Amino acid sequence: MTIDRQSLRWNGWGKADQENPLPEGAAQWEFIRTALGMRALPSTPAKRFTDVVLPKSRLNADAISRLKEIVGNNQVRDDDYERAFHARGKSYHDLLYVRAGKLEVAPDAVVYPRSIDEVELVMKYCLKNNIALVPYGGGSSVVGGVNAQSGALDRAVITLDMTLMNRVLKIDKKSMTATLQAGIYGPELEKALNEHGVTLSHFPQSFEFSTLGGWIAARGAGQQSNRYGKAEKWLVSAVLVTPKGIWKTESTPASAAGPNLNQLVAGSEGTLGIICEATVKIHEVPEEKDYRGYLFKDFASGVKAVRAINHADIPVAMVRLSDAPETYFFQAASGGSGSGLKAKLQSLYLKAKGLTAPCLMLVGLEGDKESVAYARTRTAAIAERYGATAIGTGAGKKWYQGRFHSPHMRDPMMDHGLGIDTLETSTTWANMLTLHEKVTKAIDEAISANTPEPGERGIVMAHVSHSYPDGASLYFTFLIPRKLDDEVGQWLAIKRAASDAILAGGGTISHHHGVGTDHAPWLAEEKGPQGYRLLKTLKAECDPDGILNPGKLLT
Amino acid sequence: MTIDRQSLRWNGWGKADQENPLPEGAAQWEFIRTALGMRALPSTPAKRFTDVVLPKSRLNADAISRLKEIVGNNQVRDDDYERAFHARGKSYHDLLYVRAGKLEVAPDAVVYPRSIDEVELVMKYCLKNNIALVPYGGGSSVVGGVNAQSGALDRAVITLDMTLMNRVLKIDKKSMTATLQAGIYGPELEKALNEHGVTLSHFPQSFEFSTLGGWIAARGAGQQSNRYGKAEKWLVSAVLVTPKGIWKTESTPASAAGPNLNQLVAGSEGTLGIICEATVKIHEVPEEKDYRGYLFKDFASGVKAVRAINHADIPVAMVRLSDAPETYFFQAASGGSGSGLKAKLQSLYLKAKGLTAPCLMLVGLEGDKESVAYARTRTAAIAERYGATAIGTGAGKKWYQGRFHSPHMRDPMMDHGLGIDTLETSTTWANMLTLHEKVTKAIDEAISANTPEPGERGIVMAHVSHSYPDGASLYFTFLIPRKLDDEVGQWLAIKRAASDAILAGGGTISHHHGVGTDHAPWLAEEKGPQGYRLLKTLKAECDPDGILNPGKLLT
Repeated sequence: MTIDRQSLRWNGWGKADQENPLPEGAAQWEFIRTALGMRALPSTPAKRFTDVVLPKSRLNADAISRLKEIVGNNQVRDDDYERAFHARGKSYHDLLYVRAGKLEVAPDAVVYPRSIDEVELVMKYCLKNNIALVPYGGGSSVVGGVNAQSGALDRAVITLDMTLMNRVLKIDKKSMTATLQAGIYGPELEKALNEHGVTLSHFPQSFEFSTLGGWIAARGAGQQSNRYGKAEKWLVSAVLVTPKGIWKTESTPASAAGPNLNQLVAGSEGTLGIICEATVKIHEVPEEKDYRGYLFKDFASGVKAVRAINHADIPVAMVRLSDAPETYFFQAASGGSGSGLKAKLQSLYLKAKGLTAPCLMLVGLEGDKESVAYARTRTAAIAERYGATAIGTGAGKKWYQGRFHSPHMRDPMMDHGLGIDTLETSTTWANMLTLHEKVTKAIDEAISANTPEPGERGIVMAHVSHSYPDGASLYFTFLIPRKLDDEVGQWLAIKRAASDAILAGGGTISHHHGVGTDHAPWLAEEKGPQGYRLLKTLKAECDPDGILNPGKLLT
Repeated sequence: MTIDRQSLRWNGWGKADQENPLPEGAAQWEFIRTALGMRALPSTPAKRFTDVVLPKSRLNADAISRLKEIVGNNQVRDDDYERAFHARGKSYHDLLYVRAGKLEVAPDAVVYPRSIDEVELVMKYCLKNNIALVPYGGGSSVVGGVNAQSGALDRAVITLDMTLMNRVLKIDKKSMTATLQAGIYGPELEKALNEHGVTLSHFPQSFEFSTLGGWIAARGAGQQSNRYGKAEKWLVSAVLVTPKGIWKTESTPASAAGPNLNQLVAGSEGTLGIICEATVKIHEVPEEKDYRGYLFKDFASGVKAVRAINHADIPVAMVRLSDAPETYFFQAASGGSGSGLKAKLQSLYLKAKGLTAPCLMLVGLEGDKESVAYARTRTAAIAERYGATAIGTGAGKKWYQGRFHSPHMRDPMMDHGLGIDTLETSTTWANMLTLHEKVTKAIDEAISANTPEPGERGIVMAHVSHSYPDGASLYFTFLIPRKLDDEVGQWLAIKRAASDAILAGGGTISHHHGVGTDHAPWLAEEKGPQGYRLLKTLKAECDPDGILNPGKLLT
């Protein structure tokens, strides 16, 4: 394995032995407790692995032997750790189950193929024996996309862990494309490309523990999507194994030869085939990176600036605008030693400028020196036009250093009776402020209706992080006192309220997390009856027996 | 009708009463005759309309009355002119038939719907009576995309002329999108948008006589696609009428809610449904436009420059690089009064610079002043890096003025025993020079094997006109002495040779013309067996009776 599963947390984020970013006594705890109106933060550790009981495997010894014949002894695992590790993804919803040791859903075996041939043979075996097949890369889905469900039928489930298929097959520096196996992890991929002076620069927050295939399957977005594009933009072509045979998609830079079928692969979430290889657009490693901050007096002014930057053809890599609660929360929660005085001085300065509840915009520029210099001048001018105060590169550098950090904070928070989840959408510029307000309100009200104790409350905050000429994404984070006697019910109530508000308010059910199981109930409404039927038709054609990732995307 | 069909040529390009751009005695005739090695240019006028006999309509009086009840008397036409006008598109292949008066393929009636409701009612009528339905906008297809074929079955064909559905429904200047009915012609669309200070800027060569719906259906590209995108890029969402009901696609700026089904609409060529409305990305009318020329010593150097411009994030609207034959041909053929001396002086200057067979690159910049100034400096620097000679704005202005002109030259050429056709592909940068050479050679050899007289020859020339980070389009034009006793056979031989060379050489069968009937034999190979089967599955699901545009896209 490229990252040994034993070295990773089976029920949380990151390495098993990593340092706790929020140790007991950290300044943040008191801030959070007060902000949530909690009397105390309870101790709510996860169940120990040794105390977890897994369901009996539905695969007998013959089946395991047959699979071992196909891929080799070491590539078939049915021990408890592997089964538990691959049971679910990394959503807050998932963690509620795995931390409580509730593993009714778990694969009966985990298979690690090393080639397209092996994927085909395993799939044939599953087809013959009516076994469900769940593709798994980094397992970082936050929407239930890799959960080892068997679907409507009660049958065995094999999780196909793709991470041994992690080779770079070709780098074409003239055409700036690379062909890679889909199971390659983010850091491995960048390391291999960087050695040739090139980069994909797809940096989702999950970057450290997610894979190329997963990014494509879920139509993911990296933090610098303005320059590098969402997965569906950088995907040039793919090779999938489907129950009907190998599907190699078309691969020219642009075409009018019928619809672009690569766009069916992006977002297919393992339901049409297993993505084994992909050709992607790459870039030269940027000569320069420049990340800097601007403070706006309110969210509306910031939104105008982000929109104007998008409409002026300026080559930006990232524009990230936090609303007032998020700006405040991260400023306050970052706490830590030494920064107290600086923060106070800054706060006095901002008050003098009339910024009582400022909104932070971070602009990230990447490229050659001339491009970065041009974009810096122009974005600064636009920010100024909408009344921003430039605050230099400090906040940008800090954000950049900690850009994969947030998921690591969740486990300690969950150890202290807290719940934290994120959800995201996109909508048009015309609808941006309205949807931001509606979804914030829906989440806020659902939290209030579901707090464990009177007087407790949640924190709801949001940012725009991926922007387009016609609109942008909205990414919401909420932090809550966990209702320990009904954790899943509390989450479901909030999730339903947010999702209903998003659909009713003209947003998409997901901008880059995907659909999985958690968003599946809203997909039919978003696609409409004709579109949804077409997706089901494609599914039935590719996978008539329904063995591929059952219960995901389509209900 | 928005453009009265009687005012247009039924068997050629443009208005019936337009001035002949190549009158008898024009300097170009002698140049062309010599270039093609012809002893004389024969007179080969098209058959007069009054001499053309159309097949008897397969729709009886009852059917026509019923259709008139649905859409109104004036919206159903079955006179000879309307049937002849809508019989075929505007390919060279089509013109060989219509100019010869061979109209075996013609619609039995033409219906002009004015609303989605009317489209639905007409479709229901066709479904009930097993009548094929061919959508038609400007009718400018050059691949047989609007030909009034009945398919494998012998049945009546109704052409649905969409040009009365030409209203602008909504302009959202915050989100920079517009929603329009699909039958709107290019000039009408731009006029309506320009009144609000905005533009779609989709300017294909066919712009004057093509419609929004056709651009989407065929995945078309405007000449300034580097800035404004191909149709699949500017399409936000669409409303189609399908035999299964109304299909309104999803419409958020970006999403991870399953595959993007708008990408099935783009390139569907009327086979899945009739595109009735579309929401598209618009832009502010550019503050500045700057078109200027650079001469390279060879095509390879120019290709390097176009590639470098694409890799440097420079906001260009168009980069167009002609190979040496095209540069020479357009310079020579533009001829005309007054330019002789200038051309000679220029030629002496170029020889002094060592440019014996130069390649012209035109760079078009559009946007705000700062963006244009920045892009001008950077593109000039890149051109210089690859050895180009800057020749100022003259060639750019001339090209811009005549940018819709080429199709108007075809009719007079066809009146003089000549044949002229274009075809296009795209491929990666790594494969660009090889494919350019292979396709040129294939066309050249097929022409030589099919000339009417010994000693005659063709002209084959090409340009890159749409470029991307990973590659670019290649657009070929060939001019031939027409084999008057086997016009179609001659064309087919050349077309087959070119298409085979494109597919074998790693190109797409079409970059922006679409598939229609002419490219359909090559589509299965390009999409591969799995992809092609998925397209057929989608077709069968949307249109199980196969009434929609039969014989197009899929065979």
